[in-house]
Amino acid sequence: MKRSEYFISTLMSDPAEAQIVSHKLMLRAGMIQQMSAGIYSWLPLGLRVLQNIQSIIRKEQENAGSIEVLMPTLQSADLWRESGRYDDYGKEMLRITDRQNREMLYGPTNEEMITDIVRTHIHSYREVPKNFWHMQWKFRDEIRPRFGLMRGREFLMKDGYSFDLTYDDAKRSYYKMFLSYLRTFAALGVRAIPMRADSGPIGGEMSHEFIVLAETGESQVFCDKSWVEEDALQDAPHYNEDLEPFFKKLTARYSATEEKHDPDMVKNLDLVSARGIEVGHIFYFGTKYSQPMKASVTHPDGTEHPLEMGSYGIGVSRLVAAIIEASHDDKGIIWPASVAPFFAILINLKNGDTDTDALANSLYLACQEKNISVLYDDRDERAGVKFADADLIGSPWQVIVSPRNCAMQKVELKNRTNSETHLLSVEEVLAFLADKKPVI
Amino acid sequence: MKRSEYFISTLMSDPAEAQIVSHKLMLRAGMIQQMSAGIYSWLPLGLRVLQNIQSIIRKEQENAGSIEVLMPTLQSADLWRESGRYDDYGKEMLRITDRQNREMLYGPTNEEMITDIVRTHIHSYREVPKNFWHMQWKFRDEIRPRFGLMRGREFLMKDGYSFDLTYDDAKRSYYKMFLSYLRTFAALGVRAIPMRADSGPIGGEMSHEFIVLAETGESQVFCDKSWVEEDALQDAPHYNEDLEPFFKKLTARYSATEEKHDPDMVKNLDLVSARGIEVGHIFYFGTKYSQPMKASVTHPDGTEHPLEMGSYGIGVSRLVAAIIEASHDDKGIIWPASVAPFFAILINLKNGDTDTDALANSLYLACQEKNISVLYDDRDERAGVKFADADLIGSPWQVIVSPRNCAMQKVELKNRTNSETHLLSVEEVLAFLADKKPVI
Repeated sequence: MKRSEYFISTLMSDPAEAQIVSHKLMLRAGMIQQMSAGIYSWLPLGLRVLQNIQSIIRKEQENAGSIEVLMPTLQSADLWRESGRYDDYGKEMLRITDRQNREMLYGPTNEEMITDIVRTHIHSYREVPKNFWHMQWKFRDEIRPRFGLMRGREFLMKDGYSFDLTYDDAKRSYYKMFLSYLRTFAALGVRAIPMRADSGPIGGEMSHEFIVLAETGESQVFCDKSWVEEDALQDAPHYNEDLEPFFKKLTARYSATEEKHDPDMVKNLDLVSARGIEVGHIFYFGTKYSQPMKASVTHPDGTEHPLEMGSYGIGVSRLVAAIIEASHDDKGIIWPASVAPFFAILINLKNGDTDTDALANSLYLACQEKNISVLYDDRDERAGVKFADADLIGSPWQVIVSPRNCAMQKVELKNRTNSETHLLSVEEVLAFLADKKPVI
Repeated sequence: MKRSEYFISTLMSDPAEAQIVSHKLMLRAGMIQQMSAGIYSWLPLGLRVLQNIQSIIRKEQENAGSIEVLMPTLQSADLWRESGRYDDYGKEMLRITDRQNREMLYGPTNEEMITDIVRTHIHSYREVPKNFWHMQWKFRDEIRPRFGLMRGREFLMKDGYSFDLTYDDAKRSYYKMFLSYLRTFAALGVRAIPMRADSGPIGGEMSHEFIVLAETGESQVFCDKSWVEEDALQDAPHYNEDLEPFFKKLTARYSATEEKHDPDMVKNLDLVSARGIEVGHIFYFGTKYSQPMKASVTHPDGTEHPLEMGSYGIGVSRLVAAIIEASHDDKGIIWPASVAPFFAILINLKNGDTDTDALANSLYLACQEKNISVLYDDRDERAGVKFADADLIGSPWQVIVSPRNCAMQKVELKNRTNSETHLLSVEEVLAFLADKKPVI
């Protein structure tokens, strides 16, 4: 993409309304714009990141055998009365009355709706297990929306729901999503540690929050050092294998949010204490919805029982902010390659110069041919402005075309993470980028 | 996808609640499910079609140089007060009050919001022309939602907005989208004819509805026979050429909705009179929003003027229904290849038979390797049920594995459109499908 034909509106200084670093950097990089309290538009750069995250989540859900559906944003109050949640849910639920005086709501979550779909179509043990997921905008009417996407009101969530015949089957579904979430966050380039979470009377050991460690995290968390130093996916099984040993092995490692933390349990452990941000939550809740809503199936013996359910959520828009909280420096964002809006930024240091223009243009075309996602900064701007913008936007690699190096038919390749630079030929830089580019 | 691991819930007879053929077939094929009046969930099969349409629209918008953003579903009433539309818009606008008693609305369209974004970031003639588009759920509180997706309340729309310095520039943006829409509908496998539409006092000749011809269409339309018999994109220019001659040539061909139809003008024409469904609308509206909302830029001479705007919409969810209305028979849907949920359906006529299972499985794996999107009907069902489902779902090709042909290592390839069948070897059928499969 040529920047002159694109739309990126960056700010050189921190906007007054932002308190946390991800919010500041997203506004400064021109990724989002607030439209009203806690409600944002996604500008082109931000949308590219959001879409990359969506693609990775979709792929990992498909790998795990989950089936994608799409439920609407608005729901009928009657459906929520069936589960008993309509009156229980507080003022965070946005309640709406339509022109026919029907009571509606903007869905904050979809347990009732997916249960309604399942009870309509699924009646026999032969039709389960099933795991349905969707990615849709949700609304929670926070009393004090703040911290940008971290606590917005309209937000994008991936939520999935498993339906099983028995508790043992439900455990298998849970283990599968546990593994799938580890894989998803790893593919997103972010370390998210599963931590035992409160689950009320039902969940038992099947309730985990996935927490990204970041200095600026919202809560205190504690975990065994191995969570930070080892790859949790080492020796991970295939989905069609028995997943229990893997689940047991990992959950035997200590990890806890402040509420669940037990200092007595960690006396002999090499413990990491850090701040964390919740980006996912999985839990088993049995027949909490299937029982009152009558989502039952006939078992092989002819008896009918409500389905066993679990739910699996990822805060998709929140993840954009969480990744920035976990990966930035004082110059700007440092994107993991898989979610970066562009894999590389091509900087022409002397726009209008015949030689640098020719070299930069040919590099740009070659990147397009090789499907390397590149932002070509072809503006008439000073070098300092282009460098600052490239660091702010945070693509993993910068390719710098300067008059001096151009004369030698060389370009500079700069690593955004550690600022290391290498002088390479055009062929070398193309081969390098083509080799390293993420495949989504 | 193996049907046994997927979720498709078909009905053999017409559901009572549906009046028009697209609604009947979408319910029968298990593409959608109504959740409340005019509000639908997309079941897996329907979602695949919707996503194919989205991908094609995205690609064609990118080709035309439009920039993707994503605006939220909920908007502030204050923004609509600036344009004067908050009080004008009738009861079709879903008005919402949040917990802080702020007046909100569920966006039925986004002119105000995109104008707000542009006035925030764009201030100079150097930064235009720009064309922004997004694809987002919208809501119109129809008094009597009916005909399934044709007149639903929550619906998916692609809407784009052009911002230009001058009227001449705005014309160029309009011509570009006119051509882009022809290309988009052609890529979707549907013929949509542009027809002069009412535009109020501003639009002039720059207001066109794109109409799909279908016996069951909602309104009467008239057009020159050439619209139906010739390829409108024949000799179409590239986007960077002068598009006016192409626009003039095509708009010189007669086409009109009933409201605009003038029998005096068509006396000597070879006229087609048909029913039609509106699937797109493009129009120029000058400074209608930029003036009151102060979206102005500095011109080269230093003076400041409001931007010239146009808007470009496609009813994305409605298109799913419109394509079915235009392309079905008494057995079910006949999908254009580019939007079909699966390109082929693989039918194993004797599930459980060692030989047919082996052949069907190897064909299925080979299709996956070659990226041929195939639904493998591996259920224990009678042949009649599988044939009926395959015709109902409407993939362009059916590959039938029968015990008799299997003995000869042959399979039957059936064309859904004309029911022609061919007996082919496994290699032949794979080569055929790989060659014909759509590339999105």
